[in-house]
Amino acid sequence: MIAQLKLSPPCRNLARAGGRIIHLVLDGAGGLHDAATGKTALELAHTPHLDRVTRSAACGQLELLSPGIKPGSVPGHLALFGYDPLKFHLERGVLAAMEINFDLRDGDIAARVNFATIKANGHISDRQPEGISTALARRLCKKIRTAVERDFDGEYFLEPVGEHRAVLVLRGSNLAADIHDTDPQSNGVPPREPEARSVAARGTAQLLRSFLAGVHAVLDDEDQGNAMLLRGFQRYTPLPTLYQRFRLQGICIAQSPLYRGLSRLLGMDVTAVPDHLDSAFDLLARHYKEAHNFYLLHARVAGDEDADTDLARKVAVIEAVDRHIPALLELHPEVLVVSTDHSTRVGIAGHSWHPVPVLIYAPGTHADAVEHFNEAACRRGGLGLLPGKLLMGLALAHATRLSQFGA
Amino acid sequence: MIAQLKLSPPCRNLARAGGRIIHLVLDGAGGLHDAATGKTALELAHTPHLDRVTRSAACGQLELLSPGIKPGSVPGHLALFGYDPLKFHLERGVLAAMEINFDLRDGDIAARVNFATIKANGHISDRQPEGISTALARRLCKKIRTAVERDFDGEYFLEPVGEHRAVLVLRGSNLAADIHDTDPQSNGVPPREPEARSVAARGTAQLLRSFLAGVHAVLDDEDQGNAMLLRGFQRYTPLPTLYQRFRLQGICIAQSPLYRGLSRLLGMDVTAVPDHLDSAFDLLARHYKEAHNFYLLHARVAGDEDADTDLARKVAVIEAVDRHIPALLELHPEVLVVSTDHSTRVGIAGHSWHPVPVLIYAPGTHADAVEHFNEAACRRGGLGLLPGKLLMGLALAHATRLSQFGA
Repeated sequence: MIAQLKLSPPCRNLARAGGRIIHLVLDGAGGLHDAATGKTALELAHTPHLDRVTRSAACGQLELLSPGIKPGSVPGHLALFGYDPLKFHLERGVLAAMEINFDLRDGDIAARVNFATIKANGHISDRQPEGISTALARRLCKKIRTAVERDFDGEYFLEPVGEHRAVLVLRGSNLAADIHDTDPQSNGVPPREPEARSVAARGTAQLLRSFLAGVHAVLDDEDQGNAMLLRGFQRYTPLPTLYQRFRLQGICIAQSPLYRGLSRLLGMDVTAVPDHLDSAFDLLARHYKEAHNFYLLHARVAGDEDADTDLARKVAVIEAVDRHIPALLELHPEVLVVSTDHSTRVGIAGHSWHPVPVLIYAPGTHADAVEHFNEAACRRGGLGLLPGKLLMGLALAHATRLSQFGA
Repeated sequence: MIAQLKLSPPCRNLARAGGRIIHLVLDGAGGLHDAATGKTALELAHTPHLDRVTRSAACGQLELLSPGIKPGSVPGHLALFGYDPLKFHLERGVLAAMEINFDLRDGDIAARVNFATIKANGHISDRQPEGISTALARRLCKKIRTAVERDFDGEYFLEPVGEHRAVLVLRGSNLAADIHDTDPQSNGVPPREPEARSVAARGTAQLLRSFLAGVHAVLDDEDQGNAMLLRGFQRYTPLPTLYQRFRLQGICIAQSPLYRGLSRLLGMDVTAVPDHLDSAFDLLARHYKEAHNFYLLHARVAGDEDADTDLARKVAVIEAVDRHIPALLELHPEVLVVSTDHSTRVGIAGHSWHPVPVLIYAPGTHADAVEHFNEAACRRGGLGLLPGKLLMGLALAHATRLSQFGA
């Protein structure tokens, strides 16, 4: 493994002022060959502008986590931002809070809520009922907040996140997050009791048992969402910001609340929500004159849903991105990084573990012989197979944002 | 990816007696393409002998520190010697002492001194006055030593290092090195006070304030060098020697005091100072019959000065080295390593962050298809992209100096 960029001591002071970095993330773009065509989406797409950039760029592949490990979108993005995803692991509780921009405080305990439906025998009939709208979840949250009193020295917060999902936050002293999920991850069984994983969490587990008993009494008259499942308990500790680590003032242009929330958590600004790809690039151009120096442009090529396994759709999105490249280059970024946060496999929903292509385009960079931005071509690039979390070091270097280490 | 060579437990006892290793360091040889020729210095140089070695060698690239991080010469060499440069970090104080072969003791606090010039208003007019000769610095050191008494339970040493540079060493009990630089790194502002970075260093900071007041009173009548700036405070802790780590008895052939000092610090011998490249190779041949088994031959190709950005000069030095290769091979080293400690960019002074080419030549080595010792060719070599600090493991292995690990 290549040594890790540590912008903790003794390297903390290497980061300095320098050029601007645009990072274009083609979410889910990397992938495997399609059986029918023998090509990947990136190989099939006609991308003359991206090809032109590629010919002047340093190319390679990113191993976002570790060989064989499928990266979630959050750890994938953390790696792209230069954070070790294994060290800065975010559980679903904190992620859910992050998505709705909940003002988490240091020491808060957050858990992801599913409003589920259970039958009279106490067994779950539907862990994630499709019929639960955000409006219904909001009503359920309010109903619970009104009726169920805290019986501990602190506060609790319960907020809808979207559809059947919500977030529970406990704030107080002597709380611990070392609690097993109550979500059994399957239907036909009863919810689990909140069990402590450690002696220190026994008090919090007891408190949650009492709280859930109150919640279930209050939800008893509901048809759908008459039970609350909890998972992904985590104590929130603020992450070092992008500025603290790299002296980068970042701004995020993304549609998904997940990336917007993650960016905020790292101290980045976020733009208005772009409603399509064109408006995302418009927002980039509009904000480019401001005081930022790191621009995340998140373009969704493929993701988790079955619809995203459609090859033609992936190709179309990549080609649509390509048409925006000339205008992007007119911004004259000191550094343009193009990558993706995980691979996908055509015809198979979900992320895949394969390394993803990456390019770094900067005036005067050490260009290699790669001519197309795709998996096979980038595999022969000069950057080699790079751990994802080390990409930021190269982006900073190309932006002349790193001093020499040592005499 | 690649596990790290730890010749601390459990691997400490792997190193054993074996063949001799010559490591030829072409300081600053790696680099980027020249805009006019489209080639690097290593690509332009005519090196028939090095090419012949390359064809029988295992080749690759070294990532000396971490992607994007420009290695200083000292961390670059530490990596080549098999020491993790982030773990064994040497500040300027210890480096300055090392350059003049000052006998540092465990626990000494060393700081790099600049004799600077300040104006009547107390602002620095010149941080590094060119007019200060080593002779003048020697006189200033002596004047201070004679007039400024220590007011702590211990000793201080003040020795010239070269031109405006000197080293200050504090020896005593209850001293700490956790002190901010007094050198503000720019002219037009006053020197900073020595501030403690930690509670433990407050006493030492107070002692330094009093010492510097005495120094500045004594220097007040000087035209140039009427102020002392301090930076790079470090407590000296002896590094494990090359013998302790690898059972190598090393000898260094280098002109620069930096590499000579670093080699001494690692327990290596040093030869007489070679005054040019020919004498360096002569010294290698002369010392080759002795009891050493690791030979560092440092050949300066390019460095920090503007003159070193001259492509023609880089090419000429590389070709001059090449002419010495046949005589070197007549020594029949069991292992010849050729590498560089950092890249440079033609036309731009200073180090660059790009990986550097490396070859390992040994009878019976696993040669790859690389035919020329340059950046692009070595990128396709069998060693891949190797963390610099792991090179020593391969050199030892090729010298049959490592036992098997485990049953």
